[in-house]
This record gives sequence, C-alpha cells and structure tokens, in this order.
Amino acid sequence: MDNFQLDHVGIAVSSIAASAPVFCQITGTTLSPIEELAEMEVNVAFVGSIELIEPRSHKSPVYSHIQRHGSALHHIAYSVYDIELSLKNLPKLGFQLIDEKPRLGAKGHQVAFIQPKDTDGILIELVQRAHHV
Amino acid sequence: MDNFQLDHVGIAVSSIAASAPVFCQITGTTLSPIEELAEMEVNVAFVGSIELIEPRSHKSPVYSHIQRHGSALHHIAYSVYDIELSLKNLPKLGFQLIDEKPRLGAKGHQVAFIQPKDTDGILIELVQRAHHV
Repeated sequence: MDNFQLDHVGIAVSSIAASAPVFCQITGTTLSPIEELAEMEVNVAFVGSIELIEPRSHKSPVYSHIQRHGSALHHIAYSVYDIELSLKNLPKLGFQLIDEKPRLGAKGHQVAFIQPKDTDGILIELVQRAHHV
Repeated sequence: MDNFQLDHVGIAVSSIAASAPVFCQITGTTLSPIEELAEMEVNVAFVGSIELIEPRSHKSPVYSHIQRHGSALHHIAYSVYDIELSLKNLPKLGFQLIDEKPRLGAKGHQVAFIQPKDTDGILIELVQRAHHV
C-alpha cells in the first residue's frame, strides 16, 4: 500500500474567525488564507496541521455536523503519494468510497473521502498534495 | 512559545481489537503493543499517528464519550519540547488546564490536557516525548 502519513485533522466550527485565535494562540502559528470549497459549501483555513471548516450554508454537511456536536473534530486526513492507486486498492480491501475519483480540495490538493460506515464511523480523507503531482 | 506539532489523534473505541484492523488495513501499518493507562481507566494502542483508546470500565471518561458518540475522534495531541514551560504559559494566555502538572501517558511520555471549554470544545493534549527529556 501507499505510505499513509497523517496530513491534517479537520475541525468543524461555526466561524473560522471566532475559532482560529484559540489554535493560533496555543500553537504560536498563524492562520492560512481562507479558501472557499464551493462543492462542499464550506470555507476552510489552516492553523498548522489543523483545518478549520466553516459551513457557508445550511445545506453544507458540515452545518449538520455542528448542529449535532457543536464545534467538533470532523475528520482525519492521510497524505498519500498516488491517490488514484489508493482509490483502486481500498475497495479491494472492503472499503467503500464517498469519492471514487479524486476531487479538488484545499490548497489545490487532490482529495477523496472513504465511506465512514466502513471505518468505524470515523471520516477519513486521503490527500495527494499538489507538489506530488 | 514552544514549537507545537501535531503528535497524534486520539480515537475513542469500544474495542481496540475490533477497530484496529480498519486503520491497519488502510494505512498498511501494524498495531503497537496495548498499554494500560490505569489513571484514566483505559487501554491505548497506536496505528501510526492514530491512538486507539478503549475504556477499561464504565467509570472511564472515555466510556461516556463512546456512550454519547459511538466510536469517535476524541482528542488531538501536540508535541512540545518543554511541557512544564507550556503549562506555565497557557494559563497566562487564558487557557485553563485539566492537568496543571504533567502526568505519565502512553509510551512513557509526559502528557497534560487543556480544559476544552477554553478551546472551542476540542480536547487538546500536550505531549513531551520521553526521548526529549
């Protein structure tokens, strides 16, 4: 298999502006520019390896996550070198995919999510960083 | 401030034995030996940067987390070089601590948790790795 390393952890928040100072203060790190991911109806920004995810509308899946849990850990992301290969291999191991093909994620990276019912309810993202392409 | 890097992500699970194969299969990594953390009434084991945490009794705080959320992301952990210094600095920045002094965590590391009500509800652990001591 590909060499899976923890890439980042996604945290669902009501407001990036309101939540970012906590993580910036604790880690002494600055917030990255906020990006819109239109397909997911979210804005995202990073404080180091933490991705803050804010819903842009009530239709965003992140909005319902926050309605249920408040600000909460949302997903873990593994970096892989060949996301297309991983997306071919995972179904052979019995994992269903939310994204059968990679799509464009934050920072121009290719990303895909695994169906969480196959991963003990934990939402897992794969990320192929743009500079590996 | 100290140089905070993501050390691991903790996942609360009912059974390490039942959940570990998912993460081992996806990442192609093996499970570390299971350790008992008596004070927290949990067993823990690692698959790469994922810590699986299983309650040893109904009195464990992880047990009630699982009762509420099922298997779920539980905490994020930052590695720091001088945990005692961090525990002095954080209250000055307005963060209350669960552990005012470091205690012994998995792998012999010194660990401490920040009060989640000050961190947007996210449970954050600091880890000073034993080999940094």
